[in-house]
Amino acid sequence: MSDPSDGPGRPDPSAAVLPRVGTGIDVHAFVPEGQERDLWIAGLHWPGERGLAGHSDADVVAHAAADALLAAAGVGDLGSNFGTSEPEWAGAGGVRLLGEAARRVRAAGFEIGNVAVQLVGNRPRIGGRRREAEQLLGEAIDATVTLSATTTDGLGLTGRDEGIAAIATALVVPVSRP
Amino acid sequence: MSDPSDGPGRPDPSAAVLPRVGTGIDVHAFVPEGQERDLWIAGLHWPGERGLAGHSDADVVAHAAADALLAAAGVGDLGSNFGTSEPEWAGAGGVRLLGEAARRVRAAGFEIGNVAVQLVGNRPRIGGRRREAEQLLGEAIDATVTLSATTTDGLGLTGRDEGIAAIATALVVPVSRP
Amino acid sequence: MSDPSDGPGRPDPSAAVLPRVGTGIDVHAFVPEGQERDLWIAGLHWPGERGLAGHSDADVVAHAAADALLAAAGVGDLGSNFGTSEPEWAGAGGVRLLGEAARRVRAAGFEIGNVAVQLVGNRPRIGGRRREAEQLLGEAIDATVTLSATTTDGLGLTGRDEGIAAIATALVVPVSRP
Repeated sequence: MSDPSDGPGRPDPSAAVLPRVGTGIDVHAFVPEGQERDLWIAGLHWPGERGLAGHSDADVVAHAAADALLAAAGVGDLGSNFGTSEPEWAGAGGVRLLGEAARRVRAAGFEIGNVAVQLVGNRPRIGGRRREAEQLLGEAIDATVTLSATTTDGLGLTGRDEGIAAIATALVVPVSRP
Repeated sequence: MSDPSDGPGRPDPSAAVLPRVGTGIDVHAFVPEGQERDLWIAGLHWPGERGLAGHSDADVVAHAAADALLAAAGVGDLGSNFGTSEPEWAGAGGVRLLGEAARRVRAAGFEIGNVAVQLVGNRPRIGGRRREAEQLLGEAIDATVTLSATTTDGLGLTGRDEGIAAIATALVVPVSRP
Repeated sequence: MSDPSDGPGRPDPSAAVLPRVGTGIDVHAFVPEGQERDLWIAGLHWPGERGLAGHSDADVVAHAAADALLAAAGVGDLGSNFGTSEPEWAGAGGVRLLGEAARRVRAAGFEIGNVAVQLVGNRPRIGGRRREAEQLLGEAIDATVTLSATTTDGLGLTGRDEGIAAIATALVVPVSRP
């Protein structure tokens, strides 16, 4: 109680540690007609759905979430963290990348608040599996992840069924060290 | 003052209740040439402008704002809240959906901080009616809503005048229950 | 200590001053083939890269960051702040606009938390110059700016090399006045 600069009462927001926000989008193209590939979105396998192309698992939801987290903490992006400089991550699944992104964000001195991801595309319909996906993604980062979805009324790359996009936002807060 | 875990001074951000963020985008196509429909954006009627298609009022600004709020609170999205499971909302106006989304976010235990929405498209020019729109949307959710706009330099679905898009972000905070 | 409404202990989040978030995207088209123009992105010159069109410097990263800040504070957008009503800003560089946007956000009573911007496009490759860009943008607003990048797998306006997009999110907090 003796330090007036650190006294009781409502904190001075200009002195408090502020949270930080980040955003990330990701887009992957469907594999060409006639080519078979499984679809993995939000860490889940979607049987019967056309897969996305890419040397990764092309999980746009997990990728967008990871990029939003990395951006909020200012520790680069998927390319700088898991690209050619660290070949051991080549081909790693999206949820594994997301978990490692969260680990690096914490290692850089941040607590993770939440991540919200919106799937943008005609397929898959996530409704029935939303809670399953949110739980899986949330366990990967040990924080709340929410998943939503929308379409683009037949317009743009997602409306024309060329691919699937995802957009995410994340909130982190610098950990105060006493 | 006797509980050391809850003592005076600047709060430990790692212990404090963190806000949560969410994001939402929405896209609607213009009605085909020759077809008449009124344009409703941000809860306002825009006389003389080409309307957007959809069985709803196609208010992309209100829809994106609602989805951002629902995502921040983790209570699904427009489809899961106002889709086929609740047919009484079929055809409801965007601002009415936004107001009900805010009610559900609060019912789930969150206070609403703010929502910011950006209209992406060539039309309408919102400048002269920004404050009117912000007030109307803000009253719908009883919290600050800000509205901005941009174009895409003639590119993409909005640049080609195929439709209008909106992107929103929202901040909510879990209500502490003493 | 005598004001029970402002007593010691962990603050009631429902009473505390909440941060506000904002979002902004920007898109600019490349100049036509055969036309020479320098590329300016994130305040940096990118030698050997095809330039973007526009009467401004078309710095999509700086523009998106500025729009996210203005939206978070609810003080309009680039068009309302630096458009025809203030011709002295016509042709001003993106980083100068960003700095002035930050000044207006503070003048409106907000402290700036951070801004995160994601470049969306095939070019330029920001990896090697990320820190340089983050420092330059951060100095412009006297707050943390983080820069990330992604591609869209060959799809959409950025995948087809028609232009470059950027998406930003910002966090600000109202300054409490004692």
